[in-house]
Amino acid sequence: MESKDAFSHIDHRGMARMVDVSGKPESLREAVASGRIIMGSRAFELLADMRIPKGDVFAAARIAGIMAAKKVDSLIPLCHSLPLHSVEIEFLPDEKDSAVEITARVKTKGVTGVEMEAMIAVSVAALTIYDMCKAVTKEMTIEEISLDYKSGGKSGTWQRKVREERT
Amino acid sequence: MESKDAFSHIDHRGMARMVDVSGKPESLREAVASGRIIMGSRAFELLADMRIPKGDVFAAARIAGIMAAKKVDSLIPLCHSLPLHSVEIEFLPDEKDSAVEITARVKTKGVTGVEMEAMIAVSVAALTIYDMCKAVTKEMTIEEISLDYKSGGKSGTWQRKVREERT
Amino acid sequence: MESKDAFSHIDHRGMARMVDVSGKPESLREAVASGRIIMGSRAFELLADMRIPKGDVFAAARIAGIMAAKKVDSLIPLCHSLPLHSVEIEFLPDEKDSAVEITARVKTKGVTGVEMEAMIAVSVAALTIYDMCKAVTKEMTIEEISLDYKSGGKSGTWQRKVREERT
Amino acid sequence: MESKDAFSHIDHRGMARMVDVSGKPESLREAVASGRIIMGSRAFELLADMRIPKGDVFAAARIAGIMAAKKVDSLIPLCHSLPLHSVEIEFLPDEKDSAVEITARVKTKGVTGVEMEAMIAVSVAALTIYDMCKAVTKEMTIEEISLDYKSGGKSGTWQRKVREERT
Amino acid sequence: MESKDAFSHIDHRGMARMVDVSGKPESLREAVASGRIIMGSRAFELLADMRIPKGDVFAAARIAGIMAAKKVDSLIPLCHSLPLHSVEIEFLPDEKDSAVEITARVKTKGVTGVEMEAMIAVSVAALTIYDMCKAVTKEMTIEEISLDYKSGGKSGTWQRKVREERT
Amino acid sequence: MESKDAFSHIDHRGMARMVDVSGKPESLREAVASGRIIMGSRAFELLADMRIPKGDVFAAARIAGIMAAKKVDSLIPLCHSLPLHSVEIEFLPDEKDSAVEITARVKTKGVTGVEMEAMIAVSVAALTIYDMCKAVTKEMTIEEISLDYKSGGKSGTWQRKVREERT
Repeated sequence: MESKDAFSHIDHRGMARMVDVSGKPESLREAVASGRIIMGSRAFELLADMRIPKGDVFAAARIAGIMAAKKVDSLIPLCHSLPLHSVEIEFLPDEKDSAVEITARVKTKGVTGVEMEAMIAVSVAALTIYDMCKAVTKEMTIEEISLDYKSGGKSGTWQRKVREERT
Repeated sequence: MESKDAFSHIDHRGMARMVDVSGKPESLREAVASGRIIMGSRAFELLADMRIPKGDVFAAARIAGIMAAKKVDSLIPLCHSLPLHSVEIEFLPDEKDSAVEITARVKTKGVTGVEMEAMIAVSVAALTIYDMCKAVTKEMTIEEISLDYKSGGKSGTWQRKVREERT
Repeated sequence: MESKDAFSHIDHRGMARMVDVSGKPESLREAVASGRIIMGSRAFELLADMRIPKGDVFAAARIAGIMAAKKVDSLIPLCHSLPLHSVEIEFLPDEKDSAVEITARVKTKGVTGVEMEAMIAVSVAALTIYDMCKAVTKEMTIEEISLDYKSGGKSGTWQRKVREERT
Repeated sequence: MESKDAFSHIDHRGMARMVDVSGKPESLREAVASGRIIMGSRAFELLADMRIPKGDVFAAARIAGIMAAKKVDSLIPLCHSLPLHSVEIEFLPDEKDSAVEITARVKTKGVTGVEMEAMIAVSVAALTIYDMCKAVTKEMTIEEISLDYKSGGKSGTWQRKVREERT
Repeated sequence: MESKDAFSHIDHRGMARMVDVSGKPESLREAVASGRIIMGSRAFELLADMRIPKGDVFAAARIAGIMAAKKVDSLIPLCHSLPLHSVEIEFLPDEKDSAVEITARVKTKGVTGVEMEAMIAVSVAALTIYDMCKAVTKEMTIEEISLDYKSGGKSGTWQRKVREERT
Repeated sequence: MESKDAFSHIDHRGMARMVDVSGKPESLREAVASGRIIMGSRAFELLADMRIPKGDVFAAARIAGIMAAKKVDSLIPLCHSLPLHSVEIEFLPDEKDSAVEITARVKTKGVTGVEMEAMIAVSVAALTIYDMCKAVTKEMTIEEISLDYKSGGKSGTWQRKVREERT
């Protein structure tokens, strides 16, 4: 008989709450999330060209993602505030699919995990690329935003199963 | 010879800027974006059960999406600030795929469009669902975040081509 | 048969939405709200003493109230963003009740009213006084926060009935 | 000879400061605040009806209150930032007075208390109800916002005296 | 007898207010501000080297400045909110003084000017450079932040006198 | 061979990152920054006059500076979030130069320093004075914003060399 109690953000009457973490000890926490933006060949080529000189597209996306990770508590209603120890965002062009892979790695020491910080960092980085390229094409899509890895806390280390659908 | 100039947020030297819209007239603007979160059968069933009484999951996601639309200018570095006239977010359960379809519709009267407002509303609504269900499973993914429709402004009405891969 | 439709922020299915104001014309708008903080005699006297030299309590409360009015859209989920034309906050000591009366007046030109801006300005000004005096006493209460007056928009001018209980 | 020094946020020259808490040890902290919104019979009945299906009014107010608690440091000028461990908000309809009682309970482990977090959560939840019902009536008032309980820190546990005026 | 009335943000009793601009017509507005950060030779050389490949220092500073311009109303207590039409930030290395000149140009159409937006853009861009270089040296200073030009509004066009001390 | 690695916020490929501080122990940290705004004789005299009764200019500037210190992580892209223990801001009129000296002192206990918090507090306090006096004159400049002192952390205590140019 689990039902609602399985959702930690919802109490037994179906009402939202910010989970009580006051009994939890601090531990080192890490989370990695990823996603991709499929750009279409024309935007992808223009973007690839830009990277050669010193285009600000990826720089803007990286900074937007980092800043979003720091304010996840003001975006996701029931997220705890958590001073972050590190945020890193990587972009990997995927020429075959005219896509850009985005990976965010977040670390902290605290009583809750940083999964949402990593997820929002990827999402906002992808949306920033979308914003900067939308004059070229609006046919872009953001895909496969997911958690890849987390460590720390009571539930310990978790790793995503390999995505067969991508291979 | 288009190259960099095709990116309106990047000047001819590859540097970021906030596009000058001071010559543009105000017009009624609308944008619709959508996306989906694939939840896995167990989380989907729990969520579906919750909706029958008065679970706060969709309410929280809807409000988070609406609030995010209002602050897109503080998240996406080169977005213009724009007072919004209307934001609506819909959730449509997709039992076959154990997914939830999310659609956001944003309207305003202004000198720039509201595409990014609709895109961020969908993204943050999806992330909020993720956050509220992640105690059940971490295997969820957010997919197909894209613009479906826009109207208003110099470029007028635009409609996304049907996604064949979904049918 | 009004029921839910009477709540403009709730659609016919009981779901939250940001009301569509795109058909509404701009007009000059004004709203006045008020409230009071009952301090107890000791805190009231200390506060009154402070005002004679150049105590920062009211200055801090005034500024906090003005700044809160400007960000009401990020606090109240379904409020529209609205650039404000003017915010003024007054404090009136009420020696008989050891209280401070707070009045906020907000003006703008726009498609929605500024009632919530005036209400939040009073609330945050009162809470700031509370915060600055709570080392002296925690027995303070904030009372009678209400809208006193509004003008502009389709519904025109509205004035609160006199509060008999105060006289 | 206490005068100004009794206000911890004001130095001996009457100037605002953020109190130095660097010598204080961390401890578990809790605060409970409450307040009520008097709605008038018509709005109260409509609201009561809504609660039966799955109206979003209380959900929106709860989420708004929780989110406001997390950003109290950006609203109340001299409040310390403090990552919160838990926020819970309850609504209790009071049919006799056509009112809704609002209670917020906040916990953390830190060097300062969470009284203001609980007070702002109640205030913003009340204002959100006001905002969502103001199309029905503007004659609502927010009343009796006060601290009910606090524990932790050097000053230890404090409980509000019973309010005789309510009984 | 001007005294206090000369300060538009202060009323005749010496109290802060947000100036009432509701009688003012909208006009195109522009403001240019500048400033410089004196880095010392070592940091300057490292920074200059970085610019050759694709260092993110100036990109980060540019984006930080643009984002700060958009939120000036939440930083400067009595500033009006104003949707901006354009923000551009330029960096000009000054080898002789081991300094970087920063210029920000902001445009909008509105009832108040954008001087503070340009000033804050320069300030935050300079502080971001400081932050990114402070591991190399802490002896940097930020200098000569000033308004250079404004146009629009009742007071019309204004141009700063040439700074003799710089030539 | 130091080059890029000297910039802690830039990785070896020239890309921005939020420095990983997860290995660093907490320590008491303090930072003092200062700067000045040169006002011109007319604005300086008006401001000086105001200070005698109870003008809100310095109160507003002090509060703006304190609030900015608390949100430095949302302004400076790669700054860590850090709950502050204390912020104090002083204003010292300098009649000879018609200037106001601004000093900010910030303390915390944490894994990173509070230099940027002190720097932004001075900058925003100066900009607030500018904003409140700009109706009198636009010829003001903000000068010599710099770090004066820091203590705590692995690098320990650091003191700025005396500025000969000021004496």
